[in-house]
Amino acid sequence: MFLNSRQVKSVLTSISILFLLLVFVSSAAATAPKYVFLFIGDGMGIPQRMAANEYLGHKLMVDRLPYQGITTTHAADRFITGSAAAGTAMASGVKTNIGVVGMDPDLKPVKTLAELARDNGMKVGIVSSVSVDHATPAAFYAHVPTRGQYYDIDVALAESGFDYFGGGTIKDPDNDRDNATTFRGNAWELIRENGYKVTQNRADFEKLTPADGKVFATNEWIQNSGALPYQMDTSSKDITLSEFTQKGIEILDNKNGFFMMVEGGKIDWACHANDATAAIKDTIEFDKAVEKAYAFYKNHPDDTLLVVTGDHECGGMTLGFAGTKYQTYFDGLKGQKMSFRQFTEDIVKAFQKKDVTPSFEDMKPHITDYFGLKFQGAADDLMVLANHEITQIIEAYQRSMDKNVEKSSDPRTYIMYGGYDPLSVTLTHILNQKAGIAWTSYKHTGVPITTSAVGPDAETFQGMYDNTDIALKIMDIMGLGATFKYAKAVNN
Amino acid sequence: MFLNSRQVKSVLTSISILFLLLVFVSSAAATAPKYVFLFIGDGMGIPQRMAANEYLGHKLMVDRLPYQGITTTHAADRFITGSAAAGTAMASGVKTNIGVVGMDPDLKPVKTLAELARDNGMKVGIVSSVSVDHATPAAFYAHVPTRGQYYDIDVALAESGFDYFGGGTIKDPDNDRDNATTFRGNAWELIRENGYKVTQNRADFEKLTPADGKVFATNEWIQNSGALPYQMDTSSKDITLSEFTQKGIEILDNKNGFFMMVEGGKIDWACHANDATAAIKDTIEFDKAVEKAYAFYKNHPDDTLLVVTGDHECGGMTLGFAGTKYQTYFDGLKGQKMSFRQFTEDIVKAFQKKDVTPSFEDMKPHITDYFGLKFQGAADDLMVLANHEITQIIEAYQRSMDKNVEKSSDPRTYIMYGGYDPLSVTLTHILNQKAGIAWTSYKHTGVPITTSAVGPDAETFQGMYDNTDIALKIMDIMGLGATFKYAKAVNN
Repeated sequence: MFLNSRQVKSVLTSISILFLLLVFVSSAAATAPKYVFLFIGDGMGIPQRMAANEYLGHKLMVDRLPYQGITTTHAADRFITGSAAAGTAMASGVKTNIGVVGMDPDLKPVKTLAELARDNGMKVGIVSSVSVDHATPAAFYAHVPTRGQYYDIDVALAESGFDYFGGGTIKDPDNDRDNATTFRGNAWELIRENGYKVTQNRADFEKLTPADGKVFATNEWIQNSGALPYQMDTSSKDITLSEFTQKGIEILDNKNGFFMMVEGGKIDWACHANDATAAIKDTIEFDKAVEKAYAFYKNHPDDTLLVVTGDHECGGMTLGFAGTKYQTYFDGLKGQKMSFRQFTEDIVKAFQKKDVTPSFEDMKPHITDYFGLKFQGAADDLMVLANHEITQIIEAYQRSMDKNVEKSSDPRTYIMYGGYDPLSVTLTHILNQKAGIAWTSYKHTGVPITTSAVGPDAETFQGMYDNTDIALKIMDIMGLGATFKYAKAVNN
Repeated sequence: MFLNSRQVKSVLTSISILFLLLVFVSSAAATAPKYVFLFIGDGMGIPQRMAANEYLGHKLMVDRLPYQGITTTHAADRFITGSAAAGTAMASGVKTNIGVVGMDPDLKPVKTLAELARDNGMKVGIVSSVSVDHATPAAFYAHVPTRGQYYDIDVALAESGFDYFGGGTIKDPDNDRDNATTFRGNAWELIRENGYKVTQNRADFEKLTPADGKVFATNEWIQNSGALPYQMDTSSKDITLSEFTQKGIEILDNKNGFFMMVEGGKIDWACHANDATAAIKDTIEFDKAVEKAYAFYKNHPDDTLLVVTGDHECGGMTLGFAGTKYQTYFDGLKGQKMSFRQFTEDIVKAFQKKDVTPSFEDMKPHITDYFGLKFQGAADDLMVLANHEITQIIEAYQRSMDKNVEKSSDPRTYIMYGGYDPLSVTLTHILNQKAGIAWTSYKHTGVPITTSAVGPDAETFQGMYDNTDIALKIMDIMGLGATFKYAKAVNN
């Protein structure tokens, strides 16, 4: 009997597949990674990542990971998702409705990756640059119908049994919002009763070791709403997202492995406010946190899965503006010295407090100092404001200073300023546009985002898939089959 | 001797690799695909694809292809690319400067995929919905320092030896631009002298068979600039991009295989004008053309490589608008009955020609008829215009009708209308915004795009890579190694 080349190929292929199956069976138990990192850049879409690359002049760590995919983000009940539904999708593999945390659309609680890891004897860490009871981190340990139930979320945090919370603080320890399912006393006390050591400054943070047991570590300066300061507003006193991540690795590292979720939450907040510089600098800090995990991966390449994604794009950021046509000038962003928020707090509010509103002339030097925008200069200096830009800024200044102005429901005013201080948001708009960056919204958008991965079976994160698939893929890789099947069933 | 499970795994893996190598060696000669399709959606970025999916309510064919990747698009000398540099990158694997067609930055001609295929005995087809001498298609057969050298490109087309040109026409057969390197007489005559059968209407097109030899097939109605009409403006008399593609497959199919490039060129033009409906409908028609190639792939799965990409995003399209916040209403786009261009031609120009400018009242019914925008109606009807929108439309109408207005260089006016008819572009802006779609530019942007693929070795199109890699990957898969190495060397 003679075989032609096609038949030879076929026989050889069959033998190969047989042997590969044997390899798979013999090693199935060994492939589940012991260490799993899930990084979520809140509001970090494809334009945000590309903007940070272009600002740096080189690729982010996340863009250098070997496997890259495209992820769709819609919620069960809306095309443009929110952080609660997106967080639940990525934590539990279940498509749910806007505002729902850790529950399916019928408000049935769903198991999360973090809980499954805990139940399998792994340690668990949750890190965020916003409050750790915000929707994205909460989706990994809480199960509430609406994300605003901060007290309930804080109780769930205290009782999660997780080993490390790092970054921002909690928002409603005393149920000031008066929406608790059951009030159980001050949440910080519950947290301490459940064995957490709480630190609130750099000195105490630096002393933390694995011997401290369960840890809740936050920063001395909480800029607003329980969150860390924007990276561009920090001083050396402030603990950064990458430091919280590194400390988490040290505390969680143990022979049974760990699961760690790290959120870059203020990328989203900067994008809501259309502040590209703040978004880029928080994206770069988020990427430094990824570098910490990547260094750990390099030491444990067979046992570490590292997945980095976003939960949705925010702001409708694009890298091209009508006024600058085909040109971009990202270096122009380097003239911005503080975030829109800090400018509002430090400069605008100081002006507003004066009995007699200062003239616009008094504001000019601050605009130049903090945004690099100049009121006069050489014709070829791209940072010199054009007349129509100065007109926009003066209009915004007058609105910012007008003590009688109510928060307008006029749609045109909203489109111009969102809910933000008119002067601050106008300055970031104009500076961003000079750089060639523009925005279309103060909310999220439905544009797909990028997911990146390295580690065992990380190649499955290539291609195009839904945000629920991120949790399902991780469950599959971690060998959490039963939950995987449940989540699949809920989605179908 | 006993082996532990790790050693067993190692031995089995080695045996498997050995067999796989045998399979590879035994089939290496057979792996180069005979049939290669490269589809380029000009200006088709990730938001454009997602918008079409959401408009349809189901996934495009391109999003159902098994392999998906993310592609960066910058030119050698600019972050935001143009079609000439991007076309050259995808045709030849070489990063070049803005405006350069088929040459490297030193203006040395570079071989293209299409030429390499031709030199290897394959047939070659070039299809575009814009003129087939436009930058993107030209990058596959012409080598000129500036894309505006249309006459030179037309001569290159005539002498390409390619087998099929389909879609739009040519732009400068008589060197009216007076920029020919050498004038060689009317380009249509050169095309016919080189053996092409030229058809210019549906009846003749439908009679074409492979027996006709080399073919140049275009449409009777050329809407403008040598291009096919926007898909939404077509009647049954017009030959569509998918029909040109299907005819190409019939004409090119032969035992030595073929290479075919199909460009959806008017997606870009619609996006330049910020007309989402026209962009979406041309994207859907482009996708139908991909379906024709996919049907061919299904009949020849081992021999057909199908790659679909874009050359850059255009318009800074995003799927979220400040005024509609988290809501989208894509069905609203269905009220638009003709493209911005056809509205300008048929309605605006008719108004402009009248001796006495008609009142805005006379324009209102046309706005409702052709864009679905209503001047009165129920409070919950999303298509009813708000007062600030009516104000915008009236301002634009007055500008459109003003016979004394010069094309303004005022930057604020440019940001509002680009170079377009003020009324038409304002109507698409407002309609798009009601749908939740917004734009930031009338030019391209630097946001990465999606590449999709199926066929032999198509999995290499997963991940994140540069537009030059598209050509390099195809060359590699087609076994065009020497050129592959040259292009790599030029880039490094």
